[in-house]
Amino acid sequence: MSETATGKPFVSESRVRVRYAETDQMGVVYHANYLVWFEVGRVEFIRKLGMDYRSMEHEDGIGIAVVDVSARYKYPARYDDELVIETRLVAARGAVVKFGYRIVRAADHMLLCEGETVHVVVGKDMKKRLLPEKYAKRFAAVLIS
Amino acid sequence: MSETATGKPFVSESRVRVRYAETDQMGVVYHANYLVWFEVGRVEFIRKLGMDYRSMEHEDGIGIAVVDVSARYKYPARYDDELVIETRLVAARGAVVKFGYRIVRAADHMLLCEGETVHVVVGKDMKKRLLPEKYAKRFAAVLIS
Amino acid sequence: MSETATGKPFVSESRVRVRYAETDQMGVVYHANYLVWFEVGRVEFIRKLGMDYRSMEHEDGIGIAVVDVSARYKYPARYDDELVIETRLVAARGAVVKFGYRIVRAADHMLLCEGETVHVVVGKDMKKRLLPEKYAKRFAAVLIS
Amino acid sequence: MSETATGKPFVSESRVRVRYAETDQMGVVYHANYLVWFEVGRVEFIRKLGMDYRSMEHEDGIGIAVVDVSARYKYPARYDDELVIETRLVAARGAVVKFGYRIVRAADHMLLCEGETVHVVVGKDMKKRLLPEKYAKRFAAVLIS
Repeated sequence: MSETATGKPFVSESRVRVRYAETDQMGVVYHANYLVWFEVGRVEFIRKLGMDYRSMEHEDGIGIAVVDVSARYKYPARYDDELVIETRLVAARGAVVKFGYRIVRAADHMLLCEGETVHVVVGKDMKKRLLPEKYAKRFAAVLIS
Repeated sequence: MSETATGKPFVSESRVRVRYAETDQMGVVYHANYLVWFEVGRVEFIRKLGMDYRSMEHEDGIGIAVVDVSARYKYPARYDDELVIETRLVAARGAVVKFGYRIVRAADHMLLCEGETVHVVVGKDMKKRLLPEKYAKRFAAVLIS
Repeated sequence: MSETATGKPFVSESRVRVRYAETDQMGVVYHANYLVWFEVGRVEFIRKLGMDYRSMEHEDGIGIAVVDVSARYKYPARYDDELVIETRLVAARGAVVKFGYRIVRAADHMLLCEGETVHVVVGKDMKKRLLPEKYAKRFAAVLIS
Repeated sequence: MSETATGKPFVSESRVRVRYAETDQMGVVYHANYLVWFEVGRVEFIRKLGMDYRSMEHEDGIGIAVVDVSARYKYPARYDDELVIETRLVAARGAVVKFGYRIVRAADHMLLCEGETVHVVVGKDMKKRLLPEKYAKRFAAVLIS
C-alpha cells in the first residue's frame, strides 16, 4: 500500500452528518454517539483494506469485541454538521487490535473529538481467538510503525 | 387471572425515567424513543403473565418480530420525567400478536403518547411460525374481549 | 420544479448504511431506527427544496414536531446494508405537514419498510404556529396532488 | 453525611434492566450504551445528594458537559439482565468534576464494566463556569479523600 511505502500511515476518512436523534437538550450531540461514529470509521477502515466486517462475522465466525474505549471531547458537534471521521490502526498483535480516531468538522477541519478503542478478536462463543492470518497480514501492512 | 374474571382487561404497568440521552435539541424526548418504551412495556407484560421473552428466544427459538407500529404524540415527555407505560394485549391469533400502549406522566397521569404494535411470531430464520401452545393459552386468558 | 411540471411528484432520495449499533440480537435492524431514517429523509427532502431545517429552528424559531407516526415492516434490513430512503410530501395545510417514506435496499430495490409521519409546526414554546409563508410556498409547489 | 464521617466514600446505586434496543447482533449489549448508563448513575448520584440536575440546568443555567470518557469492558451484559450502576465522585475542583462507575450484574455481582467521566461546568453558551457554591459544598462533602 503506497501510504506505508512512503512512510505515511494509512488513514481512512468517513463522513457522517449529525442526525436530529443524536442531539440532546443541551443543543449539542450527546457524547455516546461519538462511539457509534468511531465504529462507522472502523468499519470503513476495514472495508478500504479490502476486507469486510460482515463476512468476518458470517464466514469466519469471528467478532471484534470492544474491551476498552476512551474519548476526549474538544468542541461540540451540532445538528446537521458534516463530520469527517479519521481512523487509523494503532496496534494489531495476536488477538488484540487497537484503533485511533479523530472527528473533525468538515467545514473548517476543527477537531471535535479524538479517541481510541481496543478490541479483542472473539469467536461466536465470545471467547478470545487469534485474528485469522489473512486479516492479520493486511492489518500489519498498514500499521503505524 | 382475576382481571379477566371480573371482565377488566389485564393492563401491565412499567416505569421508566427519561434519560438525558433520550432528549433532543428541541428540549423534549426524541419521538423514536417511545417505541423503545413500548418494548419495555411489552416485555414486562409478558413477564407478568409468567413468561419470559428471553427464554422464548433461547429455549423455543422464536422471536416476536414487529411488523407494524403506530404512535400518536399528545404532549412531550421531558428529561427526568417519570413515566408509566400501560400495556395491554389487543389480539393474539395464529402467528399474529397485537399490543396497545399508553404512556402517561407519573406525576399527574397526563397522557403523553399512545400506540399499537403488531407482531408476527418468527423462527430463527425470520420465517413465520405459530405461537407455541403454552404461550398462546396465556395470551388468550388476558385478551381484551 | 420540473418534477411537478411533468405531473410526477417530487421524491427525495437519501442513502444510509446500516450501523452495527442499529442491529439487535435478532440479527436485524431494531425497528425504532427506521424512524430515525425517516427523519434523515425528511431533512434531506427539505434541503433539496432549498430550505434548511437548522435555520428554520434558529432563524425562524419554529420546529416541526412529530404528532403521528406509522410504519409497516416488510423485510428486515441487516448490518452494513446500504439503504435508500425515498421521501415525499403528502400534505401541507396550515400548521400540519405530512410526509411519506419508502425504505428500499440499494442492492436490489427490495422494499423493507414504508411509513408516514404527521407534524405540527410549533414555536419554541411547543405551541402550534402556522408554517411561515416562505416555506409554505415551496412545500405547496411539490405537493402530490 | 454519615458515609464520609465513617471514612467510607459515598457510592450511589442505580438499577437498569437491559432493553432489547440496547443489544446488537453479536447478542450482547452494544458498548456505547454503557455511557448512557453511566449518565443514569450520575443523575441518581446527584439526586441522592439532594440536588437535581434538571433544576441545575433550568434554574442555575449550568450544564455538566462531558470532556473525557473511558470505559473497560470486562464481561458482556445481555438482554434482560438486571444491572447495578455504582457511581462515586472522584474529584470536584473549580469547574471540573470527575465521576467513577462500576456496572455489575445484579444476580451475581459480576463486574461487567468500569469507567470514568470528566466534566466541565458550562453555562448555556457552552463556556466554562465555576460550579456554584451550593453544589460545590455538597460535592466536597462526599468526595473520596
